[in-house]
Amino acid sequence: MSRTVAESKDLMEQETRLTESRPASPGTLRPGGRTAKVRGAVLDATRDALAETGFHALNMDRIAASAGVGKTTVYRRWGSPVGLVTDLLHDMAEQSLPAADTGGLAGDLRANAELVRDTLTDPRMGAVFHAVIAAAACDEECARALAGFYRTRLAEWAPVVARGAERGEIPAETDPLELLRAVSAPLYYRFAVTHEELTGDVAERAAEAALAAARAGVFTRPQGASGDLVGQE
Amino acid sequence: MSRTVAESKDLMEQETRLTESRPASPGTLRPGGRTAKVRGAVLDATRDALAETGFHALNMDRIAASAGVGKTTVYRRWGSPVGLVTDLLHDMAEQSLPAADTGGLAGDLRANAELVRDTLTDPRMGAVFHAVIAAAACDEECARALAGFYRTRLAEWAPVVARGAERGEIPAETDPLELLRAVSAPLYYRFAVTHEELTGDVAERAAEAALAAARAGVFTRPQGASGDLVGQE
Repeated sequence: MSRTVAESKDLMEQETRLTESRPASPGTLRPGGRTAKVRGAVLDATRDALAETGFHALNMDRIAASAGVGKTTVYRRWGSPVGLVTDLLHDMAEQSLPAADTGGLAGDLRANAELVRDTLTDPRMGAVFHAVIAAAACDEECARALAGFYRTRLAEWAPVVARGAERGEIPAETDPLELLRAVSAPLYYRFAVTHEELTGDVAERAAEAALAAARAGVFTRPQGASGDLVGQE
Repeated sequence: MSRTVAESKDLMEQETRLTESRPASPGTLRPGGRTAKVRGAVLDATRDALAETGFHALNMDRIAASAGVGKTTVYRRWGSPVGLVTDLLHDMAEQSLPAADTGGLAGDLRANAELVRDTLTDPRMGAVFHAVIAAAACDEECARALAGFYRTRLAEWAPVVARGAERGEIPAETDPLELLRAVSAPLYYRFAVTHEELTGDVAERAAEAALAAARAGVFTRPQGASGDLVGQE
């Protein structure tokens, strides 16, 4: 990320004024205007740092410097690298793309699988996801934030499954989250565990396999039985 | 892991004699007798250290000490923490349980899913898998060794799919590895990414969903199109 000296100076002045009048509340504050600009700069810098050096090398001072924001603000508002990663995941969830509506469940699930694949194979976002998955593996708070990110993503796409059920494409009692998890799983398994290539074919097959299982009624059991999306280690 | 002083001394003497007469070849040497005993002790200590402190804190000197083996041997034979993890994964692949044969594909796939679940939910083995997945994420050689582990596991279970096809339970052209990956994926996705609980229900559904997709012909495409099991980042 590059920022001109003037822009950085401008942001530093803004944040100084702001943090003096408003106490920090890490991860929950979501105002517009200048505070949002400071937050955007810090989260951009966090994303860059995660992509470049990973979670273990996150350095608050360097992030403050590359965001053009005062160290004190970063420490006060986010507290720690974990606080930064947590807020970044909230931001990513808020900014994720809306669900597809192609008119058929097969097309919608294919679009979902393609979106996951595009994200994970993007060099920058792929590196960010490797980093947040690593962070979640060693920190409970990051794990909860990552679970929250997926909860938001799944909730956004759940209507796709409901529409498919209304059109009679799958059983009416299909658990939308279970079906959507089944689309993501083969992609994330290759991405995070076996490090196999995420070809277009892998995405297509993930969508088709999930749909076939849904049609066969595999995802119609009571939702509670499958475990909730909670961070646990 | 505990080892008596006498056992440790014995092992140290054995390895001194052995390494003097036989040059090391990390990860490939697989002789019986005393060398195997030294290797077993070192890999046990590596497994314990991975489970307790993770990959990033692996310490060759401490592993040598807790295995009761001379440091020089450990450095000469395994070279680095990556060498230890790589050899441990070879050993784990060699020692993995044989495939089930329940007489039906549904039962065999359920047994496979249960085995994966038992491994990942075992406190000690779960911690080892978290550590080797983390190691694979940051080291290319570990990624190749982990891919090799899964290749061995999948090859062991492939006959289960072939027998199911012979019995007419799934299309004859079903790609065994794609079907078996589909069984593992939902379990590993929860284990390594979303940190959701691996209940018995999750395992059962993973097996059922994979079988339903196989029956629908989703895994019958040419094998080459799905990407090979290669370590890549």
